[in-house]
Amino acid sequence: MKRMTDATSSPTQGTAERDTGADVHPLLAKHRQTLATALDAIRERDYWSAYPESPSPRVYGETAAAEGKAAFEAYLGKNFPLDQPGTDQWVATEASPFGVELGVSYPHPDVEQLFTAALAGMPAWRDAGPHARAGVCLEILDRIHSNVFELANAVHLTTGQAFVMAFQAGGPHALDRGLEAVAYAYREMTSQPGQAHWEKPAGKGAVLSMEKTYHIVPRGVGLVICCNTFPTWNSYPGLFASLVTGNSVVVKPHPRAVLPLAITVKYAREVLAEAGFDPNLVTLAAESPGEGIASVLATRPEVKLIDFTGSTGYGNWLEENATQAQVYTEKAGVNTVIVDSTDDFKGMCRNLGFSLALYSGQMCTTPQNILVPAEGIRTEDGHKSFDDVAAGIAGAVGKLTGEPERAVELIGAIVNDGVVSRLEAARGRGEVVLDSQAVKHPNYPDAVVRTPMVVKLSSGDEDAYGTECFGPVSYVIGTGSTAQSVEVFRRTVGARGALTAGVYSTDPAVLDEVEKASVDVGVHLSCNLTGGVFVNQSAAFSDFHATGANPAANASLTDAAYVANRFRVVQSRRHSQPAGA
Amino acid sequence: MKRMTDATSSPTQGTAERDTGADVHPLLAKHRQTLATALDAIRERDYWSAYPESPSPRVYGETAAAEGKAAFEAYLGKNFPLDQPGTDQWVATEASPFGVELGVSYPHPDVEQLFTAALAGMPAWRDAGPHARAGVCLEILDRIHSNVFELANAVHLTTGQAFVMAFQAGGPHALDRGLEAVAYAYREMTSQPGQAHWEKPAGKGAVLSMEKTYHIVPRGVGLVICCNTFPTWNSYPGLFASLVTGNSVVVKPHPRAVLPLAITVKYAREVLAEAGFDPNLVTLAAESPGEGIASVLATRPEVKLIDFTGSTGYGNWLEENATQAQVYTEKAGVNTVIVDSTDDFKGMCRNLGFSLALYSGQMCTTPQNILVPAEGIRTEDGHKSFDDVAAGIAGAVGKLTGEPERAVELIGAIVNDGVVSRLEAARGRGEVVLDSQAVKHPNYPDAVVRTPMVVKLSSGDEDAYGTECFGPVSYVIGTGSTAQSVEVFRRTVGARGALTAGVYSTDPAVLDEVEKASVDVGVHLSCNLTGGVFVNQSAAFSDFHATGANPAANASLTDAAYVANRFRVVQSRRHSQPAGA
Repeated sequence: MKRMTDATSSPTQGTAERDTGADVHPLLAKHRQTLATALDAIRERDYWSAYPESPSPRVYGETAAAEGKAAFEAYLGKNFPLDQPGTDQWVATEASPFGVELGVSYPHPDVEQLFTAALAGMPAWRDAGPHARAGVCLEILDRIHSNVFELANAVHLTTGQAFVMAFQAGGPHALDRGLEAVAYAYREMTSQPGQAHWEKPAGKGAVLSMEKTYHIVPRGVGLVICCNTFPTWNSYPGLFASLVTGNSVVVKPHPRAVLPLAITVKYAREVLAEAGFDPNLVTLAAESPGEGIASVLATRPEVKLIDFTGSTGYGNWLEENATQAQVYTEKAGVNTVIVDSTDDFKGMCRNLGFSLALYSGQMCTTPQNILVPAEGIRTEDGHKSFDDVAAGIAGAVGKLTGEPERAVELIGAIVNDGVVSRLEAARGRGEVVLDSQAVKHPNYPDAVVRTPMVVKLSSGDEDAYGTECFGPVSYVIGTGSTAQSVEVFRRTVGARGALTAGVYSTDPAVLDEVEKASVDVGVHLSCNLTGGVFVNQSAAFSDFHATGANPAANASLTDAAYVANRFRVVQSRRHSQPAGA
Repeated sequence: MKRMTDATSSPTQGTAERDTGADVHPLLAKHRQTLATALDAIRERDYWSAYPESPSPRVYGETAAAEGKAAFEAYLGKNFPLDQPGTDQWVATEASPFGVELGVSYPHPDVEQLFTAALAGMPAWRDAGPHARAGVCLEILDRIHSNVFELANAVHLTTGQAFVMAFQAGGPHALDRGLEAVAYAYREMTSQPGQAHWEKPAGKGAVLSMEKTYHIVPRGVGLVICCNTFPTWNSYPGLFASLVTGNSVVVKPHPRAVLPLAITVKYAREVLAEAGFDPNLVTLAAESPGEGIASVLATRPEVKLIDFTGSTGYGNWLEENATQAQVYTEKAGVNTVIVDSTDDFKGMCRNLGFSLALYSGQMCTTPQNILVPAEGIRTEDGHKSFDDVAAGIAGAVGKLTGEPERAVELIGAIVNDGVVSRLEAARGRGEVVLDSQAVKHPNYPDAVVRTPMVVKLSSGDEDAYGTECFGPVSYVIGTGSTAQSVEVFRRTVGARGALTAGVYSTDPAVLDEVEKASVDVGVHLSCNLTGGVFVNQSAAFSDFHATGANPAANASLTDAAYVANRFRVVQSRRHSQPAGA
């Protein structure tokens, strides 16, 4: 396909509209309605999703699942088909939590050649303009979506997520987050016109008149450092935000979850090449075992943008050492729920139980600390003691995870050995209300599957609950009162951060008090969830993920702050005839 | 005045409109039209100014100038009237370039007490919301504008700018830049609604329904580190961008230009208090001689935003060491003009001569390097040799600066001794086409006044012209060709950065080539300026100042990137009835 010049009309009426009369890029024309709806959604923040989350054959067709699985299986035991330049060896570093041998090898880059290749295509990508780049990025998202079952299998087998969750979070929800980032970036890039006519009265009827042109220019190379548990969901916002703003993107996958990113990079390169751009605008940087390539890449002068999801230690290192780049980090935190009272005790326990069980607590958004007054709480059935509450939550988890065939479709497998070690260490911290069980996976005999553990602590045990214990461990913590729960919440989240918080109360004053505390410590709050919405799930286009206002993250997915620094505006001006002349 | 709660309608139709039906804050109501017009202006980037730039009595009234001067004089020789807490001593550090004794002492803060006071008012300021804060900030701008002659006298006598320039750049143009920052921040803060209703189909006719609230929260304390030459123009964008987004602001003035900021802080505190907010949301941090308080303040954990204008060395230090904060820097650069050809030789020389003469080259935007082919250029009068061009520019400067009474109204005084030293050192670098003259100021006998110097170099003298020589020194540099001029431009601006660039050519291909180079190295370009627009002047609401895309600055005044990171969005959500229920 021949590359078309851009300078097109934007897809919606409103402030972003800058119709210059030129032809619209065919890929923007193709996806115009999707972009328009996404722009509406981020403005209104009501419900919308571009990519159906149900893997049902009624939605995706009878053959999609089998075809996607076959495409996934065709990668196994081979060199992954990526023809990017500068490959100096092939590396295979994955070990499926399900005990399945993947055996895929990935190109390892010579770093100098990688950056030379990454920079080469940027001028043409920049000059194509925001509209054409948005069209290409929307086509990449669409291309990945056309191969979503292939991607879902890769996410499933590298992360340990159950298949349906891997499909939803790794496919449609990740694509929604990528689209959301494209929409935000598009809005910001088009918030000033491409051209403006300026006339200043200069006295005695004279006029100073100028034509001004505003060029959107990229920052440099964007580096995306991906995590093991949500390789696509956590990386698509940064990847697409950097790419659509004109930057080249180097994707550094977690060594145990390379395949979902290799597939992503493959389709991105395919679309870029078809649209007449340099495929090396998106490259994969797989690392050899123990290499630590992220630090090498992150401190290169060419790298001006870094997106990272992972540990607090490494996130802080990046913020302090990659000072040549704008660094966006999502790190660890202590997600907290305050239980004060409820008019639906069973619903509360069921809802919290599901949140703890989902992916066996291996979500960065899983509640860890559940603060409950030691004297118990008011419910629709009268008073429930602290032990009743702990038993109710533990019972709900137990019910969801008691039967292996059903359990594994919710809890999946344990992503790596570190999680098992932390689980074992947590057992000694307090009274175990619900112990973790090893479960035999019906389909994957070598899978490491563990049900969540619930441990009782008291508010004095801050040494235990005051830091993140990533994995299937949650604490029900007895406090002196709800007021003390709020104090503990403020102190721990203030010090360690959190991505999510919840509160259960029938008292509007308590809800307001906890909302005030949440605003003060900068964490998103969910109130009285008893139905089909869970504290650990956020919906693209409506819910922000992380705030950037507490130590668990320095940015949010996705807001204007997340995209606006990924490009700059460079202006030129020259005199012209006054409009009336 | 009693503080009113906010949650008001925003002033314009469009995406920012979020009318919640509550009463509008009276200060937003008062300034609604100003904000609406500013929002239009940043979207269209056509000509607009909110504050008249002419100090004429016809504009400001017959008595304004005298009253403002009297108000300014009332400050002299006394402790400046600022009642902020934690003052541990009074410091007087100014020395007017005009040799006038100012003798004003300023409160020096105990840093612990300063931050305690700065943080105390933030929750109420945050909770007032974007609309109320915008109203208060607009009132502060208005209050300063009501006292603009007082401010102009302070800028004039601390910077050495001639009075009219001090009035324009230090008053209306600075206020325009502050208003521009308020408008950008307001747009970003209101780009998502305060509330949203979310409904997700949950199968079989069921609906998940939630009400979501989005709170705008500040980052912390914003520190504004001001410069000597443009104390208000360079600091108002950061000051108002941080304040309107809910942060507290500590203003650290340059020790030689404290008074303009002290006046600013005084009126800001006055308006805050009148509106029922804590005046300590804006404080002054004057330093004692040689103290280096900026580094102490900049690395405090409370400081989350830093705006700095000054040297490359200190700007880089801030970027590398104040990693707890988002740092916005404007540093040094090598502003460059490429002369290829012209159809208005006199107009070109006159325009460039004015740019060099204005404030004696002490603008961060003054051209330093003028690249001219050694074999000369084409003009409307035929060929002009390199020496003709150098003589033409030098002649224009000489004409503007030859007569002391007129000259001082353009060139002002030399801001400090460092500039004089650099001027002396430059004399030996090449052939002096126009030497700098010491001028006796007719009104200020002790003023240090120097006319600009023009020195001829060749492209091989990159040791001399490759770094900034801040002050009244410009180089006319002979190159092998315009193509080589573009190479030099790319190399020097790429390595050292620039805030401005210009080109003169009658050949559209050359204009395009230089525009391409400007986009590549990330500098704003002015083409063929021969009339009343000058390369070193940028108009708020239309011209961006700095790009953030080259080493001279890491941010632009003002774009979305400059404001979007100064606040965060914190969300809460709770179940609600479906809209149709």
